[in-house]
Amino acid sequence: METLEVDLAERSYPIFIGQGLLDRADLLAAGLPQPRVLIVSNETVAPLYLTRVRAAFAAAGVEALDVVLPDGEHFKDWPTLNRIFDALLGHRCERATTLVALGGGVIGDMTGFAAACYQRGVPFIQVPTTLLAQVDSSVGGKTAINHPQGKNMIGAFHQPQRVLIDTDSLATLPAREFRSGLAEVIKYGLIRDLPFLEWLEVNLDALLARSPAALAEAILRSCRNKAEVVAADERESGERALLNLGHTFGHAIETGAGYGVWLHGEAVAAGTMMAAELSQRLGWIDASLVARIGRLFERCSLPVVGPALGEERYLELMAHDKKVQGGRLRLVLLRAAGRAVVSADAPVADVAAAIAARCRAGAVPFLESAHG
Amino acid sequence: METLEVDLAERSYPIFIGQGLLDRADLLAAGLPQPRVLIVSNETVAPLYLTRVRAAFAAAGVEALDVVLPDGEHFKDWPTLNRIFDALLGHRCERATTLVALGGGVIGDMTGFAAACYQRGVPFIQVPTTLLAQVDSSVGGKTAINHPQGKNMIGAFHQPQRVLIDTDSLATLPAREFRSGLAEVIKYGLIRDLPFLEWLEVNLDALLARSPAALAEAILRSCRNKAEVVAADERESGERALLNLGHTFGHAIETGAGYGVWLHGEAVAAGTMMAAELSQRLGWIDASLVARIGRLFERCSLPVVGPALGEERYLELMAHDKKVQGGRLRLVLLRAAGRAVVSADAPVADVAAAIAARCRAGAVPFLESAHG
Repeated sequence: METLEVDLAERSYPIFIGQGLLDRADLLAAGLPQPRVLIVSNETVAPLYLTRVRAAFAAAGVEALDVVLPDGEHFKDWPTLNRIFDALLGHRCERATTLVALGGGVIGDMTGFAAACYQRGVPFIQVPTTLLAQVDSSVGGKTAINHPQGKNMIGAFHQPQRVLIDTDSLATLPAREFRSGLAEVIKYGLIRDLPFLEWLEVNLDALLARSPAALAEAILRSCRNKAEVVAADERESGERALLNLGHTFGHAIETGAGYGVWLHGEAVAAGTMMAAELSQRLGWIDASLVARIGRLFERCSLPVVGPALGEERYLELMAHDKKVQGGRLRLVLLRAAGRAVVSADAPVADVAAAIAARCRAGAVPFLESAHG
Repeated sequence: METLEVDLAERSYPIFIGQGLLDRADLLAAGLPQPRVLIVSNETVAPLYLTRVRAAFAAAGVEALDVVLPDGEHFKDWPTLNRIFDALLGHRCERATTLVALGGGVIGDMTGFAAACYQRGVPFIQVPTTLLAQVDSSVGGKTAINHPQGKNMIGAFHQPQRVLIDTDSLATLPAREFRSGLAEVIKYGLIRDLPFLEWLEVNLDALLARSPAALAEAILRSCRNKAEVVAADERESGERALLNLGHTFGHAIETGAGYGVWLHGEAVAAGTMMAAELSQRLGWIDASLVARIGRLFERCSLPVVGPALGEERYLELMAHDKKVQGGRLRLVLLRAAGRAVVSADAPVADVAAAIAARCRAGAVPFLESAHG
């Protein structure tokens, strides 16, 4: 088992990465303020892992309540979040009750937001079971739900007590979900870690075959990057925004196509290609790097073009981005392989041209053949 | 104009108290990160003051958007909160947009919670127009909405940038609302400020006549108490809980009677009598102090008994209180005039007996004759 620390002074916490962690009562129950937790999971993950996690808590003498939500990005909304509050109040949970997020990014974001708001803040633990959640969303304390007009628009910064990443749980992950997670892994290489990008190019086949050694290495290096960025800039006043490479375009795709139609990582892959295309148009990177990034995504069967929503609709959706300042769109763009910057310099015409160049009528988020 | 400081390190902020502050462009617009605000008000307060506040912002070159919500505690819920998010997104408000709460405690709590959550946190300013909001809820950063099973169960700690208390706005406050606010004023005397309690006993008639000098003094002394307590214990791990004298009983009355039937201060007055009754049963204070407190409330035409919900129902509603720890009810009780403590020592039988002694079938939150 590997252990990383997210260094945030009094809000610091450990990330544990290894096999079989879902059964580790010692890690799950350590330091609970009260021997009572509410596990939040979804209808896909609960049948696979809920019994095991409940048993681990029981072994540690902890009463484990649970609430099982429907699965999918389109349930990342208030009515579904409210089911967590109903469960908390129905069970008379107190300020010392700990929430446990057992699932992917949607479960982690909603459980974290519920923990941020219930009685103005209770502790929570992240137990991510998807690659995307393990390498990205479970670390760093960003929590949110969606609004019909924009993704992740209503949320809070609320750091977990710890993150338990059981790499064994990836064995049951559907191919499409797994590949979606790889988009966020590749992101770290692109924005700040050229050696990792090169490692990914060499080891991608092993990763796609879900080699435990390759997975452990990719997750560790991703989490280390994430932990470093979050420790330096918890509230995204600077460097942390770089983690949003491809996300402004990607959120527009997710919202515009309807929540859940494109998986987050799929939208980020197409969005990253738009950002790369724009970086090239600005003369910051050359075509060979754009092609190099596209090859990596294509090896993962990830999309390199977005849906044809129309450039106007893209720009309208992007205007809701949390990085907009003074009406100016701030985008994460590439200066080189392994180096991203936040820039408000791109003329709107170039942004529109980059979108146009990288969207296609009939674009689909995944190829059935690659994921069957 | 008087100025107090709420001392919370990097989250410190000023409270301005005086006449005519609603027109003070300099105070309203100082230090905005962006010349754009969204004013949140309600259907009662907006016709009285919104135009003036908008004009003050305009004079400072600030674009002032607004959203006007229905008035009342029963609208302190998610659907109404969501109207603030709709307005923010509809106007493409950014992370640098400041929210302005123009109204009473419900508007302040909801605006503050919207500010805590929109894009994971934007700044906000409190402009309280009711006595209750001026002396209590606008200061200290507690924000929340209600859940059908419990008051203020979903919220956040989110400190405002500043608080502007225009004492002139009390001139238009209905008598019932005004008297409700006095319950929180009296609270400060009871829990930690015996000289203030004695001052209130001497000056209550002037206060009830809304003498500007008496009001200014009462608001200043209340806010000073609140600011001191919040500075010492922002997150209510200790002393801040004392501010909840009468509130655990009071929240049960508010929730049990149906949100909005009893005003918050009315429920707090009856709840404070239950807490005093219980303190006497425990032998901590004598009957003369209970009577002394009752006389103060009665001079304000505030209720000294709660509705007959049944002791079981009271206890059930109180079990949701945020101060419950390990299944044990923690109550704010009195040790003397001017000295409260948090205690988990009261036997349930005594709590039930105190409730029974202080509730009455047909108890009403106010006497029409006193408020006509």
